[in-house]
Amino acid sequence: MSSTPSGLITLTTDFGTSDHFVGVMKGVILGIAPRARLVDITHNITPFEVNEGAFVIAQAWRHFPKGTIHVVVVDPGVGSARRPILIETSGVETSGAETSGVETSGVETGGHYFIGPDNGVFSIIYDAATHKVREITNPKVMLSRVSRTFHGRDVFAPAAAHLARKTPPARFGKLVRDAVRSAALTPARTARNQWTGRVLKTDRFGNLITNFHVDSFADVKTQPFELRVGLERIHRLALTYSETELGEVFVIAGSSGYLEVAANQGDAAKITGCGVGAPVELEVPA
Amino acid sequence: MSSTPSGLITLTTDFGTSDHFVGVMKGVILGIAPRARLVDITHNITPFEVNEGAFVIAQAWRHFPKGTIHVVVVDPGVGSARRPILIETSGVETSGAETSGVETSGVETGGHYFIGPDNGVFSIIYDAATHKVREITNPKVMLSRVSRTFHGRDVFAPAAAHLARKTPPARFGKLVRDAVRSAALTPARTARNQWTGRVLKTDRFGNLITNFHVDSFADVKTQPFELRVGLERIHRLALTYSETELGEVFVIAGSSGYLEVAANQGDAAKITGCGVGAPVELEVPA
Amino acid sequence: MSSTPSGLITLTTDFGTSDHFVGVMKGVILGIAPRARLVDITHNITPFEVNEGAFVIAQAWRHFPKGTIHVVVVDPGVGSARRPILIETSGVETSGAETSGVETSGVETGGHYFIGPDNGVFSIIYDAATHKVREITNPKVMLSRVSRTFHGRDVFAPAAAHLARKTPPARFGKLVRDAVRSAALTPARTARNQWTGRVLKTDRFGNLITNFHVDSFADVKTQPFELRVGLERIHRLALTYSETELGEVFVIAGSSGYLEVAANQGDAAKITGCGVGAPVELEVPA
Repeated sequence: MSSTPSGLITLTTDFGTSDHFVGVMKGVILGIAPRARLVDITHNITPFEVNEGAFVIAQAWRHFPKGTIHVVVVDPGVGSARRPILIETSGVETSGAETSGVETSGVETGGHYFIGPDNGVFSIIYDAATHKVREITNPKVMLSRVSRTFHGRDVFAPAAAHLARKTPPARFGKLVRDAVRSAALTPARTARNQWTGRVLKTDRFGNLITNFHVDSFADVKTQPFELRVGLERIHRLALTYSETELGEVFVIAGSSGYLEVAANQGDAAKITGCGVGAPVELEVPA
Repeated sequence: MSSTPSGLITLTTDFGTSDHFVGVMKGVILGIAPRARLVDITHNITPFEVNEGAFVIAQAWRHFPKGTIHVVVVDPGVGSARRPILIETSGVETSGAETSGVETSGVETGGHYFIGPDNGVFSIIYDAATHKVREITNPKVMLSRVSRTFHGRDVFAPAAAHLARKTPPARFGKLVRDAVRSAALTPARTARNQWTGRVLKTDRFGNLITNFHVDSFADVKTQPFELRVGLERIHRLALTYSETELGEVFVIAGSSGYLEVAANQGDAAKITGCGVGAPVELEVPA
Repeated sequence: MSSTPSGLITLTTDFGTSDHFVGVMKGVILGIAPRARLVDITHNITPFEVNEGAFVIAQAWRHFPKGTIHVVVVDPGVGSARRPILIETSGVETSGAETSGVETSGVETGGHYFIGPDNGVFSIIYDAATHKVREITNPKVMLSRVSRTFHGRDVFAPAAAHLARKTPPARFGKLVRDAVRSAALTPARTARNQWTGRVLKTDRFGNLITNFHVDSFADVKTQPFELRVGLERIHRLALTYSETELGEVFVIAGSSGYLEVAANQGDAAKITGCGVGAPVELEVPA
């Protein structure tokens, strides 16, 4: 099931690409593990949007080979008491599918590693794979001086590099059983037929990716529904863009499985005026 | 003439860098070809602008060493019947210079590989080098499950990785002789002295790169002309910015050889209100 | 003290990431030095802003391992007589701390290499480490044809690649003793208690990073002061954001040591209407 860490390290942050921060993290990694290979997932997570980071890494990780180390730094609590953690996956979790919306049956999910803050950014991973979580406490896997503001450089980058150099996970720190899960990744029931969710991400085309997963809200496929975002009230679930009208705002199940608000040849984020974190209400009167 | 594929793979897409798409493609490649080295050309091609993608890869490819594999995914037709293709170049094409505007005399152009959709995105390559085109049909060089929407991940990335691992081109599929060329890359003659072209790309400084190549329209260097874009009527071909006046909009032959509309200390895209795809008329009354 | 160049090359430019320019530089490097490993610091330096480039590389370089080659291309004078240079650092410079604001005591700074234009972009490096500067004149470390407009491709990329392949620095050209330093990196005294500096960079959050270093202007920590930027007159130096009020514009000493103009849950660049290069006045009446 398990797998030794390879030298492959992915990076997902909200640091942007105009400052020196990402370059510095890479310099630290390559100073410790010169043979590491680095792949950027994205550095354009909306600043501090933990749920968007959780969504993005959940979409990306399983397409990488076993042994990959995934570093995720979306960390509004840097400098506070939140823990740095190391996660090791070891196999398939089938029960997670319903709540997380990530289809896992028959998919091999072991042998991946995740490093980042314990703030919920790995919530969807927890549902998708059996795993162990450790708090990173060993100063030997960090830089000798840890600042209050840049744990990407001082804690997460060096920890990933030491893992890539085969320092065993058990040397990073003790197992924890109360890793933080983000409540905001699952819509909250607000009435018998009504839920309030939120926008997890706006993609390049302005589509609003919500936290309503089509597996958990399969009724929208067969029942009348109303989905409300901004001032829009949407009743159509389309299977393809081609069945909608020019400019129409509609709901579609995206490649991730989450319901997305889209516009035919339009930018749904602009049309609705909504972005990451915006509330989304779903009512299925049936 | 020819050359074995090296492990070097370039990526050019319209996926942007804020989503997980590019990272996923890299994960797929490295899962199949762990020693591949990946270089991003750009992921900011204007969405679906095949001609802009054609321009960018045409500017970049020959600066890479022989054996490089160039993956280009600008693919508005994904999910339709358009073919995935593999191109192998084998030498210098001298006749292409006039129509394509790419100077090739004496330049070694063999030993490069291109993978992407058969939608015209490789049009300028076809003129610049002798080549063979194959349709990619062998399921062994694709992922086992091919989606309708993400061939970058399911077809093009794995094909590039298998090529990097020395799967011979002949194993990808049969030769095709009717590869698609984009008509939009060449200006259309509309009267005896008049042509209609278009903007291929706006660069970082707002310069509008047109599809008029200075080699094919050499008259502009010696004859009076009028170039019309948006509401601007331009009569000046400048050799350097310094010969123009502050704020002046003028034409200059860019480093690519294509005529560019530029503004002295200004942003020509903003001044003209034009962008990728905008029509450009040239009249050379002589 | 010194160190052989490793194959690790960092890139910092103002080329953006939407054109082919950065990809082309990488192609040239890998054509000459196939085993080089490339790390992007950023390509989003504001076009032609040499001082911003100087700031960014100064923040990044020392986090990379010895032997790293740092290529910086922010080059408004390309095509003019400004020299291409190669810098080699060899140890700690302690006297530079006061003027440059870069803390160096006890930090090993030898064994790094820098390649770029001699226009002041390495000014802060000169203060931070003992060093030798050479003009790059040997045509063997350049491409065979050097354009007037793209020395990133024709001079700096190949020079870095040849250095990575262990061509000795002495082969690049002769030592120079009059390398250009940017005056704009140090505030100018305009009266007994008054200085005029400027904004070096706006970061991802809209903070304005000035060229006032807290070590050189330590009085702001203990004396009343007024810092003027745009129409704002600021009197507060905060230690943390939490001590300020919602929307308040204040001064804080950033992680770089330079004073930054920040706004509590706001974008200081938008609030002040200022950006890179804007003047900043400081008055310390004591």
